[in-house]
Amino acid sequence: MSTVANAKTRAEEVIARCRKLASFSEDAGSTRRTFLSAPMRDCHREITKWLIAAGADVSVDAAGNLRGFYPAAQVSAPRLLIGSHLDTVPNAGAFDGILGVVIAVALVESLEGRRLPFAIEVVGFSEEEGVRFGTPFIGSRALVGRLDEEILNRQDSTGVSVRTAIKNYGLNPEEIPCAMLSDDKRAFLEFHIEQGPVLESLGRSLGVVEAIAAQTRMEFVFLGCANHAGTTPMHLRHDAIAAAAEWIVAVERTANNHPGLVATVGQIEAKPGATNVIAGEARVTLDVRHKSEDVRDQAAESLVRMAREIAERRGLTLRQTVMLSQRAVGMDPFLVDQIQEAIRSAGCQPHRMTSGAGHDAMILAEKIPSAMIFLRSPGGISHDPAESVEVEDVAKALECGLHLLDQLQSSSELRKRMCRA
Amino acid sequence: MSTVANAKTRAEEVIARCRKLASFSEDAGSTRRTFLSAPMRDCHREITKWLIAAGADVSVDAAGNLRGFYPAAQVSAPRLLIGSHLDTVPNAGAFDGILGVVIAVALVESLEGRRLPFAIEVVGFSEEEGVRFGTPFIGSRALVGRLDEEILNRQDSTGVSVRTAIKNYGLNPEEIPCAMLSDDKRAFLEFHIEQGPVLESLGRSLGVVEAIAAQTRMEFVFLGCANHAGTTPMHLRHDAIAAAAEWIVAVERTANNHPGLVATVGQIEAKPGATNVIAGEARVTLDVRHKSEDVRDQAAESLVRMAREIAERRGLTLRQTVMLSQRAVGMDPFLVDQIQEAIRSAGCQPHRMTSGAGHDAMILAEKIPSAMIFLRSPGGISHDPAESVEVEDVAKALECGLHLLDQLQSSSELRKRMCRA
Repeated sequence: MSTVANAKTRAEEVIARCRKLASFSEDAGSTRRTFLSAPMRDCHREITKWLIAAGADVSVDAAGNLRGFYPAAQVSAPRLLIGSHLDTVPNAGAFDGILGVVIAVALVESLEGRRLPFAIEVVGFSEEEGVRFGTPFIGSRALVGRLDEEILNRQDSTGVSVRTAIKNYGLNPEEIPCAMLSDDKRAFLEFHIEQGPVLESLGRSLGVVEAIAAQTRMEFVFLGCANHAGTTPMHLRHDAIAAAAEWIVAVERTANNHPGLVATVGQIEAKPGATNVIAGEARVTLDVRHKSEDVRDQAAESLVRMAREIAERRGLTLRQTVMLSQRAVGMDPFLVDQIQEAIRSAGCQPHRMTSGAGHDAMILAEKIPSAMIFLRSPGGISHDPAESVEVEDVAKALECGLHLLDQLQSSSELRKRMCRA
Repeated sequence: MSTVANAKTRAEEVIARCRKLASFSEDAGSTRRTFLSAPMRDCHREITKWLIAAGADVSVDAAGNLRGFYPAAQVSAPRLLIGSHLDTVPNAGAFDGILGVVIAVALVESLEGRRLPFAIEVVGFSEEEGVRFGTPFIGSRALVGRLDEEILNRQDSTGVSVRTAIKNYGLNPEEIPCAMLSDDKRAFLEFHIEQGPVLESLGRSLGVVEAIAAQTRMEFVFLGCANHAGTTPMHLRHDAIAAAAEWIVAVERTANNHPGLVATVGQIEAKPGATNVIAGEARVTLDVRHKSEDVRDQAAESLVRMAREIAERRGLTLRQTVMLSQRAVGMDPFLVDQIQEAIRSAGCQPHRMTSGAGHDAMILAEKIPSAMIFLRSPGGISHDPAESVEVEDVAKALECGLHLLDQLQSSSELRKRMCRA
């Protein structure tokens, strides 16, 4: 496959398409497109039009995922899935998720009808953000057979279940098993904005994700003794805010001392919450992530020990609860190496990185070789109307994608790895 | 005056009277008695009964203060005011304020009609807590001529002004100037529960207040940058909670390093307030108190500097606002020494201390020699139904009061000091 002279023009079109799709929204004046909401139909219609024009067969599976099949040169060839999600958070930007789908469409268009030794399936997942039902990854779960009864029965704030939402969209929940990946040879590739400041701080356009971080979320409650701020001397206090503050400083120090570890206290609430009353209770949350589960676990355990030690020394009690513990998911090492090479071929310096956020690739990786390419996020901004991408970076992503398709054509290794599935 | 053999019996009666007065409440099942509310009339009636029986003339001044005048041996004698406030916070205990009034009544009763070289005026202030109008010390302000038009026009949550509340109680706001202290020779003495844990921690019954602390209340807002807790590396964060925590630790350390200083962060609120989002904003309050205004001011300035330094180093901005700056008020040194001697005569080890909380004595001290005697607060508990006093401590307070009246009779110094007024 030749280099792409019109990459910049295509990149501009990709961005324009993302902006157009962002106008399909449940809210006037801002973008919000949740699982199988009415504007999702407009989104499906628009992308379907582009895919059909590029020579793909398009369908919507029973979990609401848009699937565009671009055939290989031969019928029994393996299949490379490329995609991301079509749903958004409320007051969203125009690129989180959908950019990965629109780039996939553009890559198929770039082939101009030429058949490869593998088929390409463009996937637009119906749900990744978890906004409507509080449950993320409804779309990708269907592909790995994990969209179970319990999830289908979950209800949104108006009492509509996932199952009913599927029916209301004109789909048949009984057919969800048909959405599953077959035993064909397959792999998955996801382009996505970084949603963080790392690539920008390094001055790089593209990154390759090696792993999606292990994540623990916890809640800590420091229980001290509320008292009068004027009449209680310092040495007779059991101040819950002071205890929590000492611990928050330790959380930050711990993360700074462990490369790649991020630890965040994002919520703090204290009671009774008056200027002239010493706090008797402070509730804080903890979010700890690392690509290594061991490092994450050790950090979380150490932070619990510290909290306990601080509480004991100050005559407070401590309650802690694990809210979420998510394992680390490695991306396919062969694909990661191939992406790194393709990024170089596109004239960029690749950066191997961990994704601190979860993505559909994390779900697909349970079944098939999967990998992700991150595009630089200006200002690190995401989940906000100010979310953006640089034309140059999208052009590089398209070039990288085409180089990757080139490399994979000539690689027997990919086909071997796909056999894992 | 002889020692009081029946001090314990009188103390038990004082406590029983306080508990009875606590039953006069706006709320069923808990004590709440705000400025000139209906139950205040019951309270006035009950105390008036006791005072008249003890030989006092009783009136309610135009600011709603109950005033019981027990004459001296001679008509133009100086006048010693003894009292505290009759109003309460919501869900109050039975002793904050009212104990000081009931002890004053008991002291007059103990005289059994005997005349002293000075008159005693028992004062039950109508308002100290600031609950109904958000403005404390309405009662004592009237005595020093500071119950001005602006305060009279303030409204409660139902739109009733202080002026209207006075009229509704059957009093005449035009007569408020008559409530003012005349140029007679006067002094003021206030018995009050400590509302803190110091006397209990020292194992002492009574304390003498040397000064009411200077107090500063401030609000600080740390403005950083909200961001994704998973995708933002530690070194690229501008975490408002982490900055606030570092500062809160410094607040506590500063107070620990300056004897007598108390510094409290009692409120903290962070935005956006999600487990997986780095906080972009943290609002915290500061309450700093010390008996010396200089020490208080230096501490507050140093804490502002530290907050600014922490914010700058972390790439945040800082906004701070002074909400309240109250000067220190010294109690009369002669009265403080006399009280200390009287506490010793009552068989107790006196403790000279600073009051971290404001009291009516702070207002009266603007015009006349004033002093306070603190009674031990079991568990340091106040503003709570669990608020209590020990019978033994009340007995000691009564003994101390009688010794003090003895001492003051034979002292020409007191009369000299009263001339200050």
